[in-house]
Amino acid sequence: MNDVPIAVLLSGGMDSAACLWWLRDQHPHSDIHALSIDYGQRHRVEIDYAAQLAERCGAHSHRILRLDLSTLSGNPLTDHSVSVPAASDKRQATTVVPFRNLLFVTATAAYAETQRIADIYIAPVRDDFEAYRDCRREFYDALEAALRLGGAVDRAIRLHTPFIEKWKSEVITLGLRLGVPYELTHTCYAGRRPACGRCDACVERLGAFSANGADDPLTYETRS
Amino acid sequence: MNDVPIAVLLSGGMDSAACLWWLRDQHPHSDIHALSIDYGQRHRVEIDYAAQLAERCGAHSHRILRLDLSTLSGNPLTDHSVSVPAASDKRQATTVVPFRNLLFVTATAAYAETQRIADIYIAPVRDDFEAYRDCRREFYDALEAALRLGGAVDRAIRLHTPFIEKWKSEVITLGLRLGVPYELTHTCYAGRRPACGRCDACVERLGAFSANGADDPLTYETRS
Repeated sequence: MNDVPIAVLLSGGMDSAACLWWLRDQHPHSDIHALSIDYGQRHRVEIDYAAQLAERCGAHSHRILRLDLSTLSGNPLTDHSVSVPAASDKRQATTVVPFRNLLFVTATAAYAETQRIADIYIAPVRDDFEAYRDCRREFYDALEAALRLGGAVDRAIRLHTPFIEKWKSEVITLGLRLGVPYELTHTCYAGRRPACGRCDACVERLGAFSANGADDPLTYETRS
Repeated sequence: MNDVPIAVLLSGGMDSAACLWWLRDQHPHSDIHALSIDYGQRHRVEIDYAAQLAERCGAHSHRILRLDLSTLSGNPLTDHSVSVPAASDKRQATTVVPFRNLLFVTATAAYAETQRIADIYIAPVRDDFEAYRDCRREFYDALEAALRLGGAVDRAIRLHTPFIEKWKSEVITLGLRLGVPYELTHTCYAGRRPACGRCDACVERLGAFSANGADDPLTYETRS
């Protein structure tokens, strides 16, 4: 696979940003089509950062697909009446919209199909395993099978997960080497800039930079 | 399975309406949660009919989930600048939004998950096979696997397809027996009431009623 076009699911977070820069490095002659999902998330500001990342990296295109999951209520990422749990609550599972990844990856595959793109990149990392069952490779294998059987023609769709065996801190190591502008990535579940520094996502991010002996270029309200 | 709640994907078309009445008949004591998807379809009027069908049948709830697939353009069901092909064109495949069924069924599963419902009913019929690969049972089996692997907990989600071996005309036979109010179902791809009578969907519907020696209670602009 050299010059074939590529689709990448770009959330605007650190991992998908590193994936975008890694793709640019690995496939310098391929058109990269980035897709972000606007699902009514509280931290919707991440989509603006995704657009800036796509432009900065020289992506061929950046599209935003709107999937309004706010009717799937009771979830703090989409329901603005539910508070985001602090990392100390150990309640990560409540931040998951049911089958969110399945919906997002399928939507990306649908967009890719309209562009005749068969190679789709997603950036789950090893840290995601425990809380998110849909970040495991066996899940992606099952979804690949469903996509192949459910497409208009019998054509393989490849869901690439280059970072699935890497820890988040290793992906940051890679991203720093590739020059990812981390100040343009968004992580905070509360959607704040400066970031809250208290939610699961902020705490995990700070820990990953710390593990690299690197300084996170973002500003935070507090660093716990 | 007796009194457990049930979710059903209700498009407002004939097949899902028959499925709803069949469920009411088979599971008289179960709460039936109907879900319709607003995906920016040209024939969006079907959602209004879905709401009427749910109420008439005594469904416990009817929710509408908005998935804006109009950015997946070039498809006549969502792109208002593309004309709907007449049945005589033999170009059914162009009316398929990529992975539409995968998205819709997954969205239904996500909604069901928020209600702790594990049994989901969908109404593909045998006639759908040729044009739509995602109406085959093997596709649903693969999607069931992806849903089981992608859920927050390891819990089976059952995708029931009671009509998958039945021809559309047989489903109408069943629906007529169960008292489905077919005047409240919508079929025309062009979204017209009276129905256009010329598109694939209208032609197929008229053929199915005709095969039953029954009269379609809908009014049509023309009956080809």
